[in-house]
Amino acid sequence: MSDPAAPPPHDRRGLSRRRLLGYAGAGAAVGAAGFAGGMGTARATDTPPAAGAYAFHGRHQAGIVSPAQDRLHFAAFDVTTTSRAELVMLLKSWTAAAAAMSRGLPVGGGTPLPYDSPPADTGEALGLPPSRLTLTFGFGPGLFRDANGHDRFGIDHRRPKALRTLPHFPADNLKPERSGGDLCVQACADDPQVAVHAIRNLSRIAFGSAALRWSQLGFGRTSSTSTSQATPRNLFGFKDGTDNLKAEEGSAVDRFVWVAPEDDPAARWLSDGSYLVARRINMAIEPWDRTALSEQERLIGRDRAHGAPLSGGSEHTAPSFSTRGSDGKPLMAMDSHVRLAHPSHNDGVRMLRRGYNFTDGNDELGRLDAGLFFIAYVRDPDRQYIPMQTRLSQRDGLMEYLQHTGSALFAVPPGVRRGGFVGEALFA
Amino acid sequence: MSDPAAPPPHDRRGLSRRRLLGYAGAGAAVGAAGFAGGMGTARATDTPPAAGAYAFHGRHQAGIVSPAQDRLHFAAFDVTTTSRAELVMLLKSWTAAAAAMSRGLPVGGGTPLPYDSPPADTGEALGLPPSRLTLTFGFGPGLFRDANGHDRFGIDHRRPKALRTLPHFPADNLKPERSGGDLCVQACADDPQVAVHAIRNLSRIAFGSAALRWSQLGFGRTSSTSTSQATPRNLFGFKDGTDNLKAEEGSAVDRFVWVAPEDDPAARWLSDGSYLVARRINMAIEPWDRTALSEQERLIGRDRAHGAPLSGGSEHTAPSFSTRGSDGKPLMAMDSHVRLAHPSHNDGVRMLRRGYNFTDGNDELGRLDAGLFFIAYVRDPDRQYIPMQTRLSQRDGLMEYLQHTGSALFAVPPGVRRGGFVGEALFA
Repeated sequence: MSDPAAPPPHDRRGLSRRRLLGYAGAGAAVGAAGFAGGMGTARATDTPPAAGAYAFHGRHQAGIVSPAQDRLHFAAFDVTTTSRAELVMLLKSWTAAAAAMSRGLPVGGGTPLPYDSPPADTGEALGLPPSRLTLTFGFGPGLFRDANGHDRFGIDHRRPKALRTLPHFPADNLKPERSGGDLCVQACADDPQVAVHAIRNLSRIAFGSAALRWSQLGFGRTSSTSTSQATPRNLFGFKDGTDNLKAEEGSAVDRFVWVAPEDDPAARWLSDGSYLVARRINMAIEPWDRTALSEQERLIGRDRAHGAPLSGGSEHTAPSFSTRGSDGKPLMAMDSHVRLAHPSHNDGVRMLRRGYNFTDGNDELGRLDAGLFFIAYVRDPDRQYIPMQTRLSQRDGLMEYLQHTGSALFAVPPGVRRGGFVGEALFA
Repeated sequence: MSDPAAPPPHDRRGLSRRRLLGYAGAGAAVGAAGFAGGMGTARATDTPPAAGAYAFHGRHQAGIVSPAQDRLHFAAFDVTTTSRAELVMLLKSWTAAAAAMSRGLPVGGGTPLPYDSPPADTGEALGLPPSRLTLTFGFGPGLFRDANGHDRFGIDHRRPKALRTLPHFPADNLKPERSGGDLCVQACADDPQVAVHAIRNLSRIAFGSAALRWSQLGFGRTSSTSTSQATPRNLFGFKDGTDNLKAEEGSAVDRFVWVAPEDDPAARWLSDGSYLVARRINMAIEPWDRTALSEQERLIGRDRAHGAPLSGGSEHTAPSFSTRGSDGKPLMAMDSHVRLAHPSHNDGVRMLRRGYNFTDGNDELGRLDAGLFFIAYVRDPDRQYIPMQTRLSQRDGLMEYLQHTGSALFAVPPGVRRGGFVGEALFA
């Protein structure tokens, strides 16, 4: 594996992640000092995307309808600065770094800094491909006003009306250290090292302006967001997300995901954006594993092997909620998850789910700390999430095996134009 | 994605993970009750391995010289039973389950259980390929004698002499809840969901006999164990494991990894096995990221971009420890990690490292809880690990950025013959 073509070690050229790009020299010199300088979008973004890369710029942010990647690192931040200018500089620096990393380039674009400076990029993704990295940014209610109702950055009059701390649902057992946050970043990639590298570098750039509040790694997607993807399984062993909203359903995506200008006149900056609901849902793995398959399937409403509704057919057959078995009871039980979550029982609303399985070790009794990190994108949480979760938390038989331990809601601004920055319209 | 060939949901045939194997009907009916019945190796193992599968049976356990997979779930267990027979039954049940899962088959081999029983397999890996899963088992010192010196299972006279709690090294900050254990399982796979599935199912099988003590997920391998693999990077951003012992170095592997019959006459059962050193090493990510590249490279002893020793050449050039720079100082600093860890400064000993990067969220100050989960396989920890770690913990300049927070040592029995079970010779 010796590489005779490698330059001698003290030749500091060519730190680009993908040498094949021949990228030396392009990109702005964004260093540790440069981060605070609001570089905007680096020139890194002027070359076409590398193979395996999702475009960073566009009408909507990437990482929403993009076919879901397999790994997640999600981070929520508390903003620590009181300066609007510093907050805007942070968003500009994050934008530049995200644009570079989405293309498989190091933060700073690969231009070397003085040898006696810390490197612009932390380095652990050097040599790795872009891995379809997407970085999706959101704004929490606390960014607009603090706990005392104080307008923190002169933007509270533009706060979206639906952006509030989610209500307490029955059986919630929320941990403050896993909930809330002024800013969020959802990093998704095929390679977890690429996702972790991105969150680490964005945290580093935020130093002095925002501090990591909580973060969550996810190792397996639990929903498909494209008809090109097979339905994955959650840690209950069942296929999850069979009926999820898919990117290919254009008009439904417009109806249920993207905020429209008329939705909220005070928050027109959010047009083409969305809302992100995050819920850390612990699963009672050990009790579930001692439950009969018949009961598991009854609680879910689908068979485990193929994901078909218990009313018959195969995975993508629509469930029939009126069909009854020989015992006279509905084949889809009244308290089954699929019945209660189905659009036909929720005023026809749908959502785009984009969650991940997680395992965070075990507790002192040897029980796995594991479950589903639920992420959903909705046009209106008041219509699409809160009523459904209220109903599920009261009536879903599955709740016996679930505990919600983290919760957050974020407004997700629209995509970034070239030369712009995340959330630009909010601060215009 | 509708599958017209799928059987109706209530037809309980065909739960095999890979339908293409056409596996229905083979394998023994190992159910929740069967686990305690000591089924030994299921018949599942009589068919040839599937594509993407590593062989489970052999002279040595898989997961040591097997080219390192990208993802890890490592688990340590406390044995809770006092019955030798139950311990042996656990090892037999684990063996059967590991043989099946290594082939991409569900626990129990896919034979359906009564619909009113819990499923034999928890299901989240159904449909996923074997993903090169390896399951490597080890025995901790506490399996042989308890804290009072009591012989727990009539095997203390066969305890390997080197199998002791590792000594306290300077600067260790070990957490008991991340250290020790009577049994360990290292699950490695290309897909984290496959590794997590394996540990979960083995934990489930252990219910009543052993309880999970601690566990660790790793997302990126930090060493190559084969010349066919590129050198990966750790979270300091540097290539790690350039000089690692590789599977292809047959005589060195025999000399430094596998225990020989003459090594320990009281523990001949360990022949063809090894010792596993596990160390959870937290990295001080934020201070490191504020350190000049020049200082980072000096502390490591290699350049960051290419991994070449600072004495010159490219990645696989042997370092020259005597070469001095124009300032008269050695180019490889006296306290550099590569110098202090090099075989030439450690009586010529080497080890086979097989560690992983980890990130476990963040602390209340927003600092990442991240680092390297160090795993090394050695023939003799007294010669190959303890002296080196003593020296590193005293003199390695990198220690300023490292804190060891977990520690364990396990004796890794030899591979399993067909029809046998893990550790069989110890209990013969």
